[in-house]
Amino acid sequence: MSIKQVAVVGGTHGNEITGYYLLEKWQAAPELIKRDSFITRTLLANPKAFEINRRYVDQDLNRQFASKNLTDPTLGGYEQNRAKVINEELGPKGASKTDLVIDLHTTTSNMGPTLLMPQAGRFYNQLAAYLKLNMPDVTIFRDEDHKDNDEHHLLATTGRYGVIVEVGPVPQAVLRHDVFEQSEMMVQHILDFAEAYNTDSLPMLPEKTEAYRFLKSLQLPLNQEGERLGMVHKNIQDNDFTTLNPGDPLFQLFSGDTVYYQGDKTVYTAFVNEAAYYDNNLAMSLMEKVTITQVD
Amino acid sequence: MSIKQVAVVGGTHGNEITGYYLLEKWQAAPELIKRDSFITRTLLANPKAFEINRRYVDQDLNRQFASKNLTDPTLGGYEQNRAKVINEELGPKGASKTDLVIDLHTTTSNMGPTLLMPQAGRFYNQLAAYLKLNMPDVTIFRDEDHKDNDEHHLLATTGRYGVIVEVGPVPQAVLRHDVFEQSEMMVQHILDFAEAYNTDSLPMLPEKTEAYRFLKSLQLPLNQEGERLGMVHKNIQDNDFTTLNPGDPLFQLFSGDTVYYQGDKTVYTAFVNEAAYYDNNLAMSLMEKVTITQVD
Repeated sequence: MSIKQVAVVGGTHGNEITGYYLLEKWQAAPELIKRDSFITRTLLANPKAFEINRRYVDQDLNRQFASKNLTDPTLGGYEQNRAKVINEELGPKGASKTDLVIDLHTTTSNMGPTLLMPQAGRFYNQLAAYLKLNMPDVTIFRDEDHKDNDEHHLLATTGRYGVIVEVGPVPQAVLRHDVFEQSEMMVQHILDFAEAYNTDSLPMLPEKTEAYRFLKSLQLPLNQEGERLGMVHKNIQDNDFTTLNPGDPLFQLFSGDTVYYQGDKTVYTAFVNEAAYYDNNLAMSLMEKVTITQVD
Repeated sequence: MSIKQVAVVGGTHGNEITGYYLLEKWQAAPELIKRDSFITRTLLANPKAFEINRRYVDQDLNRQFASKNLTDPTLGGYEQNRAKVINEELGPKGASKTDLVIDLHTTTSNMGPTLLMPQAGRFYNQLAAYLKLNMPDVTIFRDEDHKDNDEHHLLATTGRYGVIVEVGPVPQAVLRHDVFEQSEMMVQHILDFAEAYNTDSLPMLPEKTEAYRFLKSLQLPLNQEGERLGMVHKNIQDNDFTTLNPGDPLFQLFSGDTVYYQGDKTVYTAFVNEAAYYDNNLAMSLMEKVTITQVD
């Protein structure tokens, strides 16, 4: 089934302003995101959060798209309402009028250009291989913590297919030229992929594509009262998608002590010291390296 | 006249959290900032801004310390009141009970460890030379845009002497181990300097010390409606304290055009693409290189 409707979404988090300005650019020059075989539209997801220069007004918008929440009218926060409006506009989730949702995000972590894929399947496998082929710097990030798409709470899951373009490092509320360019280039390659997918003109794709799969989040060290006792160790800072071995320095405590990683096997890190995750005292994500094969 | 009272101030900007956690560390281990010849105290300047994880509640606290504002009871915003309380506590400005105020800040710009000196004079010249001698990575930043200390609006000017410890890059609301360590090390060297200054045991200081002096701020490109038309060019991003020559790329517009620097002589950049300066659409500071000599 071909891709007929594509939506590029920005400003889902109000202080990740790269997406906002990319939308501005494309609204002024819509031919840049036009392709022959499908319609591309843009949507500013959280205009009020952008105005106040915050991630969100009441709740994180990118956690409001689980099916049960989209159908619960008692959830009345700004983003809980906004999610229902967006779902009506782009979805509805599970029977979507949008074939592909591309949601633009940035991170304060040193993750480079990253493609987050919340679901598995042949379309995603081909997209991942295509992107790595055309933009080798891209890291593929599989986040399949929910088997059932209904349970997924990400905006991108309102589409038949949905991906997140996640680029860093860039501080919140800052526009970096390099991050802007990388985000733009990723979207261009994704649109080119959809065009080639539709017209059966995909290039020969590598059989195997390296990717990372989300395992779990790691919390900052806290005392009984929930106050922070330390910070991410400098040996890990900026080292997203590199190995974390049992016994490696993990946190530096304000007391001067060092906390070492206690896991029983080597893992990989991502979202290291991401500003937005401080709200929940999350220090980083732990990942495993996986291989995507085109026969999956 | 010797240094008898020192105040280390943190959290003047609520989302520059490095200072907050350094104060926490020193409150738990006060011996770390103790010296024999003076008393060191700590002060959390803007607790409410820290709580809400914002730079400020109503106004930028670090712009409220001009003498005429400190004596104006009609200025009733949170920070305008807080400034008067702090001035009472540390100052009063012009007849201060605090001999040296050290105010802790961070920046999203790639400035490394930087010492901002809002005033000139022999004490500052010696401090600058001492710091460069003991911590060569430190950049000395002179900010003497007001000849008269009364007009200076910075918190540090409440002391007889006052300096700002400014370290980056670190995103707002993030704690980086390396930035934490650099900030801590700078404060330790400044305290050591004050101790040596008091006890007449300063080492032989280099006659000349390199510094940068603030010239002016440069604005982002805006249209008639005040909307941003572009961003800091990637050739300048992260290149604080390096040269900007007439004709160098300065801004990248969303239209695809590049804006070049139109000045008539080579200058140096600082606070390049600092997040907090977006409020006023400031893109960077322009500086000139100067030499501090000990005979000044």
